[in-house]
Amino acid sequence: MFSNFVYHNPVRVLFGKGQIAQLNKQIPAQANIMLTYGGGSIMQNGVYDQVKAALADRTIIEFGGIEANPTYETLMRGVEIARTEKIDFLLSVGGGSVLDGTKFMAAAIPFEGGDPWEILASKARIKTAVPIGAVLTLPATGSEMNYFAVISRTSTQEKKGMGNPLVYPVFSILDPETTFSLPERQIANGIADAFTHTMEQYLTYPVDATLQDRMAESVLQTLIEVGPVTLKNPTNYEARASMMWAATVALNGWISVGVPQDWATHQIGHELTALHGIDHARTLAVVLPHLLRVKSTEKREKLIQVAKRVWNLQGTDDELVEGAIQAIAQFYETLGIPTHAKTYGIGPETVEEVRKRFVARNMNFGEHADITPDVVVQILNLSI
Amino acid sequence: MFSNFVYHNPVRVLFGKGQIAQLNKQIPAQANIMLTYGGGSIMQNGVYDQVKAALADRTIIEFGGIEANPTYETLMRGVEIARTEKIDFLLSVGGGSVLDGTKFMAAAIPFEGGDPWEILASKARIKTAVPIGAVLTLPATGSEMNYFAVISRTSTQEKKGMGNPLVYPVFSILDPETTFSLPERQIANGIADAFTHTMEQYLTYPVDATLQDRMAESVLQTLIEVGPVTLKNPTNYEARASMMWAATVALNGWISVGVPQDWATHQIGHELTALHGIDHARTLAVVLPHLLRVKSTEKREKLIQVAKRVWNLQGTDDELVEGAIQAIAQFYETLGIPTHAKTYGIGPETVEEVRKRFVARNMNFGEHADITPDVVVQILNLSI
Repeated sequence: MFSNFVYHNPVRVLFGKGQIAQLNKQIPAQANIMLTYGGGSIMQNGVYDQVKAALADRTIIEFGGIEANPTYETLMRGVEIARTEKIDFLLSVGGGSVLDGTKFMAAAIPFEGGDPWEILASKARIKTAVPIGAVLTLPATGSEMNYFAVISRTSTQEKKGMGNPLVYPVFSILDPETTFSLPERQIANGIADAFTHTMEQYLTYPVDATLQDRMAESVLQTLIEVGPVTLKNPTNYEARASMMWAATVALNGWISVGVPQDWATHQIGHELTALHGIDHARTLAVVLPHLLRVKSTEKREKLIQVAKRVWNLQGTDDELVEGAIQAIAQFYETLGIPTHAKTYGIGPETVEEVRKRFVARNMNFGEHADITPDVVVQILNLSI
Repeated sequence: MFSNFVYHNPVRVLFGKGQIAQLNKQIPAQANIMLTYGGGSIMQNGVYDQVKAALADRTIIEFGGIEANPTYETLMRGVEIARTEKIDFLLSVGGGSVLDGTKFMAAAIPFEGGDPWEILASKARIKTAVPIGAVLTLPATGSEMNYFAVISRTSTQEKKGMGNPLVYPVFSILDPETTFSLPERQIANGIADAFTHTMEQYLTYPVDATLQDRMAESVLQTLIEVGPVTLKNPTNYEARASMMWAATVALNGWISVGVPQDWATHQIGHELTALHGIDHARTLAVVLPHLLRVKSTEKREKLIQVAKRVWNLQGTDDELVEGAIQAIAQFYETLGIPTHAKTYGIGPETVEEVRKRFVARNMNFGEHADITPDVVVQILNLSI
């Protein structure tokens, strides 16, 4: 049976064309705002101008330069500025990396327990956080409607996650038109990211979660249907809007209530990003198909289900298991995303380094907590 | 394309066995609580005892006797008591009717604009509401995770709706086991109610809302799959839990974002309840199939879609349209719910009375605002 759950997601989503114009009303009138952003694409695509126009005569401190895979080092500079300037509202304008970084800053600014790295490294308790608003310009991570963040540390090549309801954005503005100018590679990554998020929460074992299963399949079907369309026609509003909304729903809690979750693909992928700087979504594609092959017995029933329901495959159960694994790999490839780590020049040395890191973490992963360091090696050996 | 939307649903859902034990933590320690309930079934099924045990030594004012189709007359007695007792937290323990009534009370208690009936009759603005918590004992209306309420007035045989984010429950506790002792008729009604809620938000016309459509289909498929199971085996936890969660998702905003909505079936059904006291869900079953027949041209594309995707029908488009209408009628009948108003002795006099009421309301209904009083007559004439 599916397990007891508590669901609470207070994020206000403003979705659609021109919604940035609603920004001013969403932020308290007296707020001392810091606008956080990334590499500056918001200056080119008009989003910065829209945000400034919406906020009219407000004084805003700006903090740019948050990287893809946002780093502790960069973010701590923002934290220092925010403390000095007595910032009491953070406005994230960018993609999931900027927002993840902003969430860490929101927790770190008022943190009194020493080095804020401990929020990530040792899950140090936070008592409060600076409120966050978001203007999302890249559909992918779902960060706009959840309380998770993943942060990297350059000095130690580590990548760590945090999750706390205190860093839920108060609001998130999603205008699909702001994403029209994104490079094809980033959209492909976004589709792959959302697709894998869904799989992490779905492709485990059955617990009679009839509705949750079907909703997860809905997200997969949507991504399969509109993904190639929005890659080919980036200014097709309908396809981009559906892709953007699917990426949000893939990780906002709607499909995960009461069901077992895996996330081993993410744990392994994070190490590949930390060691080789590979795009997050691309690390998922080089892990998941191989993880499914290694764990095809444990995941057998769900593999058969997804083969039938999402890809309309027919055949014996063994054929359906194989068909599902191939269809999943094929979907990444269709997006132009390779499914083998060897494509990135990754070989046995990296596998050994990842193994050591999993040994050091001293815990197993996956829905059965059976992804041991040795299983990680098995998976990566299939990938290289 | 699907339209811009704002989504914000802050209800905390505590779902599963034994969750009533979490009640005390959900209500402010200093709250002056009024417990609202219905006909007293909570005294028989153990829910009252669980609630009292969870709230231990708190002082609680009780207000029972809220009817199915809760009445303004009854609720105003509760409002008077709450004002006298300076109640600042309402705890609804019961089904959707108790909760709808409690929502009206929450708005009416602090209302300073004259007779609170105007909140319903003339959409009088409310500035504040007493916070509400809910222990749901009947899966059906979705009231536990939305801000709608429907209230009847005995003296004038009227039934009116209200909707305001101020009356969102702060939390709702859903324990499927508390519903095991419900009569079969109420479970059948609950399934039909959730099924029709979904149809009102889905069976309109296509707007490229790929994910919303598939999620609505997920709710329908879940109800079709687990509905008959939970009717036959009321203590099967898995089936009841899935039905309960599907009823919540059918009307919590997840499937309605950005899409056109109908609700004409509800508007017509409300009049039949007001005039004849027929169970709410049963009025929906005597309206929807006939409304679909009358509006089969306008709803053609969605009827074809639901025939294919939900019932896996094959055939020409005309056959699929007919197949969908028949499958929908058949689903109600499978639940033991008649789909003809004549079953309730309703004849031409009632049709004429309903027509007059729609003329007096002076507005049309449906996703195209084309359900005029004459169309209502057409629909009901097919039903009697």
